Amino acid sequence: MRRFVIDLRGSTPLARSNLFAQSNVTRYEQLADDIEAAVRRGVFGPGERILSVRRASQQYGVSIKTVLHAYALLESRSVIESRPQSGYFVRMRMDASHGRRTPGNESAHAMLTGKPRRASAPRQPVPANVDVSRLVLSTLRSIGAQDAVPLGSPYPDPALFPWRRINQYANAIARRHASWNLIDDLPPGNPELIRQIARRYAENGVGVDPEEIVITVGATEAINLSLQAVAKPGDTVAVESPTYYAMLHAIERLGMRAIEVSTHADTGIDLDALERVLARQKVAACMVMPNFQNPLGFRMPDAHKARLVAIAGTHDLPVIENDVYQELYFGETRPSTLKQFDTRGLVLHCASFSKSLSASYRIGWALPGRYRAQVEKLKFLNTLTTASVPQVALADYLRHDGYDRHLRRVRRFYRQQARLMRAMVERFFPAGTRTSEPQGGYVLWVELPPRVDSMRLYQAALAQGITIGPGYMFSMRNEYHHYIRLNYSYPWTAQTEAALKTLGEMVAKMSKEADDERR
Amino acid sequence: MRRFVIDLRGSTPLARSNLFAQSNVTRYEQLADDIEAAVRRGVFGPGERILSVRRASQQYGVSIKTVLHAYALLESRSVIESRPQSGYFVRMRMDASHGRRTPGNESAHAMLTGKPRRASAPRQPVPANVDVSRLVLSTLRSIGAQDAVPLGSPYPDPALFPWRRINQYANAIARRHASWNLIDDLPPGNPELIRQIARRYAENGVGVDPEEIVITVGATEAINLSLQAVAKPGDTVAVESPTYYAMLHAIERLGMRAIEVSTHADTGIDLDALERVLARQKVAACMVMPNFQNPLGFRMPDAHKARLVAIAGTHDLPVIENDVYQELYFGETRPSTLKQFDTRGLVLHCASFSKSLSASYRIGWALPGRYRAQVEKLKFLNTLTTASVPQVALADYLRHDGYDRHLRRVRRFYRQQARLMRAMVERFFPAGTRTSEPQGGYVLWVELPPRVDSMRLYQAALAQGITIGPGYMFSMRNEYHHYIRLNYSYPWTAQTEAALKTLGEMVAKMSKEADDERR
Repeated sequence: MRRFVIDLRGSTPLARSNLFAQSNVTRYEQLADDIEAAVRRGVFGPGERILSVRRASQQYGVSIKTVLHAYALLESRSVIESRPQSGYFVRMRMDASHGRRTPGNESAHAMLTGKPRRASAPRQPVPANVDVSRLVLSTLRSIGAQDAVPLGSPYPDPALFPWRRINQYANAIARRHASWNLIDDLPPGNPELIRQIARRYAENGVGVDPEEIVITVGATEAINLSLQAVAKPGDTVAVESPTYYAMLHAIERLGMRAIEVSTHADTGIDLDALERVLARQKVAACMVMPNFQNPLGFRMPDAHKARLVAIAGTHDLPVIENDVYQELYFGETRPSTLKQFDTRGLVLHCASFSKSLSASYRIGWALPGRYRAQVEKLKFLNTLTTASVPQVALADYLRHDGYDRHLRRVRRFYRQQARLMRAMVERFFPAGTRTSEPQGGYVLWVELPPRVDSMRLYQAALAQGITIGPGYMFSMRNEYHHYIRLNYSYPWTAQTEAALKTLGEMVAKMSKEADDERR
Repeated sequence: MRRFVIDLRGSTPLARSNLFAQSNVTRYEQLADDIEAAVRRGVFGPGERILSVRRASQQYGVSIKTVLHAYALLESRSVIESRPQSGYFVRMRMDASHGRRTPGNESAHAMLTGKPRRASAPRQPVPANVDVSRLVLSTLRSIGAQDAVPLGSPYPDPALFPWRRINQYANAIARRHASWNLIDDLPPGNPELIRQIARRYAENGVGVDPEEIVITVGATEAINLSLQAVAKPGDTVAVESPTYYAMLHAIERLGMRAIEVSTHADTGIDLDALERVLARQKVAACMVMPNFQNPLGFRMPDAHKARLVAIAGTHDLPVIENDVYQELYFGETRPSTLKQFDTRGLVLHCASFSKSLSASYRIGWALPGRYRAQVEKLKFLNTLTTASVPQVALADYLRHDGYDRHLRRVRRFYRQQARLMRAMVERFFPAGTRTSEPQGGYVLWVELPPRVDSMRLYQAALAQGITIGPGYMFSMRNEYHHYIRLNYSYPWTAQTEAALKTLGEMVAKMSKEADDERR
């Protein structure tokens, strides 16, 4: 039988073969080369033990003697060292090309190959006619760069989350159970978490039947499954404009087409415009974010919500309601949901804990109305179940007190931050700049002077270690060239202020250049 | 502004409206009724605190006086009780219709409405022309029923997993970090986990470029994303027959069509038959499970693997390789993968830790060859990221010793169990029964006498608290009527033996009845 060796030296993932069959070098040299290549790629890290001679002989299908020769060669090359009674280890000190030492806590963030994968250096310019999801992913990666000012982030500052508290619950659960059976959390999901979510809605004055809830991997999966449940490839889906790009992603991924309906900065989607669209063409679904829409931050008035649901009823139109910011209101009480106005099961309500409690646990849910059975089945087909411990840990957190206190603190903080961010944009940005007035959430939508291109600004800012959300991301129609989205969830620092000042100067300069060109 | 109250009394999720606007009862009676309904539905559980009077007044948009009246009414109905200095609580003792008390550890498994959602009682007969995914989900739920013998489970006994150890790592990670930024684990996933996975392959003698790996929510998501990356709705996908139904699910979900290619119990997919199919029609992709296929348990010979990859090369055919059982071999070393024979990037290799380490953490991965960029992007669109702590906990577990020891124990156990299960089937089942000879994994494929219907057997067994995997699940062509799949991962008990004896008697009886009818 043939055996295969470590061959990691190819420059692409595809350059890989059974070298033993073709090579002229000796077996032990080949094995030594392969292991050294693996070390250089970081597969075996500094200080890590490699396979014992016996295991290596079995796994690589060579004799013990060949392994001993190969290991001796690697020792002579200072790649590995043998330690008495312990085995063979990758040496701690190597020349620069041998990869980096990444001990302790940092190891989770270690780069695989020694070269940083998320650089803050400028990237290739993104063409005007953008692939929205690639632009978004590229923006997110730039935020991951060390020390980049995260004004471009779509996510809240994770430091605000009660991460330690939730983890204490997770730990208690883990200690309480000797094992965990996946089958207990099959769709619709963990029963106790479902109950706690229903209870939370009830506390907020929203009636929810626990049996309607389906737990998902964040709201992202909830939105994807909801859309797939109500529309098929080639169908047209009405969205807000500007719209949160996760909606556009779902439409793109499922091979559907988006029709963008103009959206007011204070009241949400233009219902007259929506009705004209519906009168003109077949629309399979409508996707909206009625509360604190990303990027506009409005709270759709109740009368508008009621009318939207009525329009949906008239046209038998499923409405996907993205309500991930439901808990981040600046007013006294939670805003209403489209779901509450829905008596016909046409609203598929999607939400998550990612904006209020923990994003990295990836827990969301759907209330899919009359489409519940389809969404539950699609969840099963898409990811089987959602991770168990996070589900139960969040349920335990919700059952005990603290969520309301946490949220009150976060809301107060975001409300202050929104004011501060608007004031600072006003102070540092040139005339002709306008901002949204967020009623909740943690992002500000900024209209720049008309001829400032947000993609150029994005590139220039990135070169200075500042990230922003270019307006291009919020439409597939290549709109919002002179808009940007700013995240204000992070504590205000001198660095934030300097970044805003720099941005303002860049905008002023770009605006002036554009004006000069026109003359 | 209008306010909405808890309205949970509707018998469907849809019967919900703003009752205040329509009702003739007084406000406080309405509020009391709504809260009582919520308690009866289990939204507020026995002993739980309900909203304070002030909060309730805010949330439900009524006066303090109305809340006080409503709470007094609920006290008089024995639904809630007030505790000095503490607030209002749902009473512990209520009549039977008020829901069940579900304290302590069991609460995670509590039923939402007092009635069991996963009964072991017989279900509606499933029609012969089955919806495979519904049948599978229904089978899984029946396994979740208390005390059901889990011969029908597709999952390994979770008691074998090093759950406590992994959770200790999770806890250490949680304590080490004050917060966790989602952005660090954006696709392709957590860098350290990726490195550990590559290292594990290297230790097994398989060269893998870490940069090719994309972390997913279990192999289920990896398979879904891989298929979507290479084929579009309406396309035809070649699969084994019988095939693992997760493959059929992915095809069904994405609106593609399956063509089933006959598959040998010892050597895997019939390559001549596959070539005939490819010569005859356009096939967008091929999905196989070359190692310890579920349900057949074969290990495809290396020569067959090499030929399959060669055929794929000739036809430029992407091959999705489901290798979730890679670590559960009964031989001395890990079997080869299709991926190792692939020099052109046509193999999309999918795997996970769900069968060898932990299913409930939901961590899988793809090595998508030349389709890597698409799979990474689809991962981002489908679920954004995979839960963070589980990724890092598994990375830490892999970095430290113990995985090999754990696997050696599991392999030895499964090998013994496979022998035992085959012997017991031989002992208890009537003549005309044949079994597979698994080379790894934990399932046995059993051919029953020709006229025994596995759906009827499934129903009859379920009524006795025994689950089996009916053959219908493994094909969309309505085949394998007289085949069942048995799980042997659970420790052998008197209950297991009794269940097998009962099954054998049922099969004998059904076989005899069928013979009698024919006469």
